[in-house]
Amino acid sequence: MSFKFMGEDFLLNTETSKVLFHKYAAKQPIVDYHCHINPREIYEDKTFKNITEVWLYGDHYKWRVMRNNAIEEKYITGDASDFEKFQKWALTVPKLIGNPLYTWTHMELQRYFDIYETLSPDTCDMIWEKANEKLKNLSVRKIIEKSNVEVICTTDDPIDNLEWHKKIKEDKDIKFKVLPAFRPDKALNIEDKDFKNYLKKLEEASGQKITNFASLKEAIEKRLDYFVEMGCCASDHALNVVVFKEGLNIEEILKKALDGETLSAEEIEAYKTELLCFLSELYYDRNIVMQLHYGATRNVNKNAFDVLGPDTGYDAIYGGANSGVKLGALLNKMNAGDKLPKTIVYSLNACDNAQIDTVIGCFQRSGHPGWLQHGSAWWFNDTKEGMESHLMNLSNMSVLANFVGMLTDSRSFLSYTRHEYFRRILCGLIGKLVENGEYPADIDRLGSFVEDICYRNALSYFNM
Amino acid sequence: MSFKFMGEDFLLNTETSKVLFHKYAAKQPIVDYHCHINPREIYEDKTFKNITEVWLYGDHYKWRVMRNNAIEEKYITGDASDFEKFQKWALTVPKLIGNPLYTWTHMELQRYFDIYETLSPDTCDMIWEKANEKLKNLSVRKIIEKSNVEVICTTDDPIDNLEWHKKIKEDKDIKFKVLPAFRPDKALNIEDKDFKNYLKKLEEASGQKITNFASLKEAIEKRLDYFVEMGCCASDHALNVVVFKEGLNIEEILKKALDGETLSAEEIEAYKTELLCFLSELYYDRNIVMQLHYGATRNVNKNAFDVLGPDTGYDAIYGGANSGVKLGALLNKMNAGDKLPKTIVYSLNACDNAQIDTVIGCFQRSGHPGWLQHGSAWWFNDTKEGMESHLMNLSNMSVLANFVGMLTDSRSFLSYTRHEYFRRILCGLIGKLVENGEYPADIDRLGSFVEDICYRNALSYFNM
Amino acid sequence: MSFKFMGEDFLLNTETSKVLFHKYAAKQPIVDYHCHINPREIYEDKTFKNITEVWLYGDHYKWRVMRNNAIEEKYITGDASDFEKFQKWALTVPKLIGNPLYTWTHMELQRYFDIYETLSPDTCDMIWEKANEKLKNLSVRKIIEKSNVEVICTTDDPIDNLEWHKKIKEDKDIKFKVLPAFRPDKALNIEDKDFKNYLKKLEEASGQKITNFASLKEAIEKRLDYFVEMGCCASDHALNVVVFKEGLNIEEILKKALDGETLSAEEIEAYKTELLCFLSELYYDRNIVMQLHYGATRNVNKNAFDVLGPDTGYDAIYGGANSGVKLGALLNKMNAGDKLPKTIVYSLNACDNAQIDTVIGCFQRSGHPGWLQHGSAWWFNDTKEGMESHLMNLSNMSVLANFVGMLTDSRSFLSYTRHEYFRRILCGLIGKLVENGEYPADIDRLGSFVEDICYRNALSYFNM
Repeated sequence: MSFKFMGEDFLLNTETSKVLFHKYAAKQPIVDYHCHINPREIYEDKTFKNITEVWLYGDHYKWRVMRNNAIEEKYITGDASDFEKFQKWALTVPKLIGNPLYTWTHMELQRYFDIYETLSPDTCDMIWEKANEKLKNLSVRKIIEKSNVEVICTTDDPIDNLEWHKKIKEDKDIKFKVLPAFRPDKALNIEDKDFKNYLKKLEEASGQKITNFASLKEAIEKRLDYFVEMGCCASDHALNVVVFKEGLNIEEILKKALDGETLSAEEIEAYKTELLCFLSELYYDRNIVMQLHYGATRNVNKNAFDVLGPDTGYDAIYGGANSGVKLGALLNKMNAGDKLPKTIVYSLNACDNAQIDTVIGCFQRSGHPGWLQHGSAWWFNDTKEGMESHLMNLSNMSVLANFVGMLTDSRSFLSYTRHEYFRRILCGLIGKLVENGEYPADIDRLGSFVEDICYRNALSYFNM
Repeated sequence: MSFKFMGEDFLLNTETSKVLFHKYAAKQPIVDYHCHINPREIYEDKTFKNITEVWLYGDHYKWRVMRNNAIEEKYITGDASDFEKFQKWALTVPKLIGNPLYTWTHMELQRYFDIYETLSPDTCDMIWEKANEKLKNLSVRKIIEKSNVEVICTTDDPIDNLEWHKKIKEDKDIKFKVLPAFRPDKALNIEDKDFKNYLKKLEEASGQKITNFASLKEAIEKRLDYFVEMGCCASDHALNVVVFKEGLNIEEILKKALDGETLSAEEIEAYKTELLCFLSELYYDRNIVMQLHYGATRNVNKNAFDVLGPDTGYDAIYGGANSGVKLGALLNKMNAGDKLPKTIVYSLNACDNAQIDTVIGCFQRSGHPGWLQHGSAWWFNDTKEGMESHLMNLSNMSVLANFVGMLTDSRSFLSYTRHEYFRRILCGLIGKLVENGEYPADIDRLGSFVEDICYRNALSYFNM
Repeated sequence: MSFKFMGEDFLLNTETSKVLFHKYAAKQPIVDYHCHINPREIYEDKTFKNITEVWLYGDHYKWRVMRNNAIEEKYITGDASDFEKFQKWALTVPKLIGNPLYTWTHMELQRYFDIYETLSPDTCDMIWEKANEKLKNLSVRKIIEKSNVEVICTTDDPIDNLEWHKKIKEDKDIKFKVLPAFRPDKALNIEDKDFKNYLKKLEEASGQKITNFASLKEAIEKRLDYFVEMGCCASDHALNVVVFKEGLNIEEILKKALDGETLSAEEIEAYKTELLCFLSELYYDRNIVMQLHYGATRNVNKNAFDVLGPDTGYDAIYGGANSGVKLGALLNKMNAGDKLPKTIVYSLNACDNAQIDTVIGCFQRSGHPGWLQHGSAWWFNDTKEGMESHLMNLSNMSVLANFVGMLTDSRSFLSYTRHEYFRRILCGLIGKLVENGEYPADIDRLGSFVEDICYRNALSYFNM
């Protein structure tokens, strides 16, 4: 038996899907409107000493499956050598049957390293040598250019001075755009013990003394205006769960927090609701897209958190809250003055998919097709099945052709291949509809929609 | 590349499915046991001045996707001309890749208008002309006859005098049955500001003075008996969420409501629980099928509601409540005196599917196969994937051959094609099981089951 | 048209899947690490007077669908003759299109009775004769040996003296292992009216006077040690819903229960949380696998419960609780002293699948691959679609090759065929990945993983 592993027509099971991908999707530049890469590394055109640095230094997706495979922490985040860590990764990879990390690993080996063997203990040494050799001629900028990336939106705290974005903008050698995105989570997370300190830093960054809710809002607005000046066209909020609570006194809640008093769950929720609604109006007035992420429960393993801190592979899918009704209520409140901004909603719980599609369907408006969007399958759902389920729900209950498409949400410079993965899945799905008689084989029209979803819709939606 | 768009064998991907559909399913008359069409329009044999009147005057499914496509409200529910509205719809349709509206639109064009082109700006004028020409020879009765409809159950308020049902019954030219269905939502919705007024109307209609819960129940019973006299064999309840609350004093709750006092959530739930249980016994005694619909959150966008009112495309899927346990408790309470009526349960949240199949499995009884039924995929789930998921759960956890089948739940006279859509999907699914070796290719037996599901089970279950 | 019904390559739709199944999976012995069979019947090598005794005396799966098919209870659990019951079952079977009972029924007829016809009224008499004839030469031990079973773990109450396990161990004719599993549900279910009586029996069994929480724990520990002595390597807990509650006084709660006072929901949850955490440490220290089952709502139909008691087909899927967050919190508490045992988590609600995969991913550790496991699709989900969905989530979000595989969870000696069903589905899924280009056609490697999942992983994980 011989089947082509991840060949040219990978995931393209119909003739229609092949044409849609190769003739239309593949050629589109990448607009990566949401990621977590470090702009300094772009400006400084960082290089990598070996494949372990690129792959294993910061990727908690890989850490999780290595722990599942009983690898000791020493070889994951500990002080083992880079080669030893790579060996342990090579030991784990063959076991990842059906896991997106299997696909991502080999897409990255194929596209950036011209390596078409699969990683396993048998090929570990060879791939280590070959990839490290290739890395000598790869730098962050070269990777981005090779990936045909046109725009990158990073994720930035309001207190960030955006020094590296500024330098990138001034560097005429950099042809792609790198724009900041406004992520004021720390100003929203009033329950964090670091909240008070954070407001101090926000005072400094904004030059605005913060003594009450009004002055806090002014400080935030100043920072947002600075971000806009620097080209910002997107904001992001990691909510964990959707918040909606009205009727409490926000000034008093803020005062309690500043006085170091403990807040009730209702007070925390009321504060977040109010501040989010304030922010949404600012976004509307500045034509900034608002992104709302929810459905995660974080730092589930306290022992691990104490040793390794956040974002080290100990988060999970949250479920069971009445997120749909709260989401509707929150959007409705933001919409009260008819100033609901363009909004992308993402839940980590795929069971919310249909609900999100129907809730956002209640707030569509003229101004831009798909004023509200159901964001691409995210994090644990960034799998073939996860993306197919998201796209299926979206096409069933919303308008597929108006979708703003894929993002990497990644900390790694090699993950632009996930756009290719998405595009293949998208074309696979549309091809199947056509060959199933559910849409005519009008390739020109479909090709144009595919281009929209892969590229033009995002450009237009974010007004880049 | 050329694939047949929505051809004769649409959605029939196996030889078995083709035989099952063409030889068995397609020939069955339609029993549309749940819809929202206006019986007056049947009696008066309404005609339509153009395709916009049929398609866009009342269809909030279409309105939603037009709003998604940034069409101004003027062209949706506003004062634009019918042709302009049709143009905007034609502009939107090609974008609906994978949306059931794409299928429905073209099924209706094919079956009622002999139009086999797809709707788009390119074909807009031609289809406008051709469809309007055809409409001259189509009336409500002609559409129903052409669709091979044998029985229609409308949805009617207990205060309705059923004048048009009576006239239809007396009109010997009408060969199909049009039966009323009892939907006492307004008597249940004690929290509505209109509740007290409604009871006044119910007094008038029933000739029963309503002063307390006992007399309210008598009034309702009188109306139900009138409905039964008029041929009613089904009731329906739109619950939004499943209710179950015991132990409160219903007389006091009703008195508070009549005195204009605000009720607590618990009081509202207790009242509904009690009244539903009373109703269920009435239904049992009269062999009326009870339908329970839940899982919707309505009028999510308040701005839109203020302008357009209810049922205008601003509802969404509700999720997160503990509906399964409450559903079990409610059915158990209804079952206390061993008088649980034949019941069909529908949730708008497809995540409830398996739960519903297992809860109703706890109350099956001799009397009729499938005494309790899991209702067909509904509203937002009335899609190929939604129906497949419903049928798959039902066949896995219940008894497919006892299913009472499809309904339109529609306000439109053209939507009988959804029965064809369902039948193709049903035959597609069974054909796949056969060709996958999961059921023998015993076509006679399967064909008979298909006929049952498409036609005979409903006739027998509703005792029509 | 002619398709092979349940032939040699049943569910093996690719060449790869055929090789994986026939060359690797099919040959593996069965490790049935979780079932509910009676060890006495093994020791005494029970025989069956007819097929009804094997199939219908205790199988509430079958009872449910017979009730759905309007069969009177007399022919299900009542006093009709065995042949009459078999007739009613034969009447029901053809209607079970797409139901796993259809597959199980015919797998059992094929594998144990050499009957290749399908059961229906037409074949009822013939199959009754032929199966009963075959049964004369089949006994419990012969069935187990014919099924290539190597290890069976039963489910046992801590007060059980394991008399039959002891006798089996001493019987040199029995080549397969029969090990007890520790299921202390009755010690956890402090809300049961039988709780106090149960503690009395536990006192007797353990020889430990129970006067407070400390002595209760001692009594349990003694019984666990006895079970371990008898070869126990697994425990099991049926939680219905995940519990997590801290901060209450457990001694007081236990005292209230012993004094016959009613406990609040919080007190019950706190008691269970504390006892589970105590147990989990015992398990860790003894290298016992902990199984946690949840997501069921039981005895939904009170009328039926009053007549027939528990486990008679009146349970359903529970849904809507915030199980993911509680599961994370419970595992985290168990992990506090770094003594979280090997744990298998099962939910009856398939909507929890992705959540479970991500929560257990937060607690993996070196010691054994897949220290935490997402248990096989269970009870209502023990269907082709249920198993595919479980395996798909597991492969997407966890590490498929480390999975401990299938179990029967059954009361019937004929249900070892469910292992074959699972293996075909597993090979079908992997074969599809290969032929879809998502994994190389490295048959030796995949074959070895398939063997691991079907056999070796369980042996090693349970340390049998």
